[in-house]
Amino acid sequence: MEAVHVCEKLALVSDHWSPKIVAQFNGHDIQVVKMKGEFVWHAHPETDDFFFVLKGHLVIQLRDGEVKLGPGDLYVVPKGVEHRPVAEEEAELLLIEPEGTPNTGDPATAVAKHWI
Amino acid sequence: MEAVHVCEKLALVSDHWSPKIVAQFNGHDIQVVKMKGEFVWHAHPETDDFFFVLKGHLVIQLRDGEVKLGPGDLYVVPKGVEHRPVAEEEAELLLIEPEGTPNTGDPATAVAKHWI
Repeated sequence: MEAVHVCEKLALVSDHWSPKIVAQFNGHDIQVVKMKGEFVWHAHPETDDFFFVLKGHLVIQLRDGEVKLGPGDLYVVPKGVEHRPVAEEEAELLLIEPEGTPNTGDPATAVAKHWI
Repeated sequence: MEAVHVCEKLALVSDHWSPKIVAQFNGHDIQVVKMKGEFVWHAHPETDDFFFVLKGHLVIQLRDGEVKLGPGDLYVVPKGVEHRPVAEEEAELLLIEPEGTPNTGDPATAVAKHWI
């Protein structure tokens, strides 16, 4: 019966592009992540992809444009839409995905997700 | 292809306990809400209930305790668990619920939810 202190969880994260689970909700993992640099182009054929920026800035590149996000901004990449997150400087985000969703869209290349 | 600026959305909200939809994700409404005072005791038999505090403080009373939340804290009330949100001063939150979920747990007393 304890709140999840998201900033405290993020303080424990040292690696980039490696989401850590902090809670679960209706079959989804609620995750914190630090992003820096360019991720890979990918899509999730079975799920929308939820991004909420807590700190820093993120650009989500899409094949036909881009979305610029700062602190307090959110964006949902629709299911199946190719995208590439890019963070020039380190950014901290809350992500929500169905349990077991591979972060690269491909289980062969995805990082293993653990609780923090 | 525009980010949702959550603070700007909240600036448009004047009423309390009346969630406004700002985005959708996997059949769920992502909502902003201002809370002040005591809400009603209720439960959602079919869904977990996601709270993320953006500003202010919130206590989620449960039948066997309470959870205290400040800015950057999140909590998921499990499906079916009775709870009552209480905010001594105005608090601003992000909520996530399946589309059409009544905020009081009962369609007869729930507020209608609109996009903002």
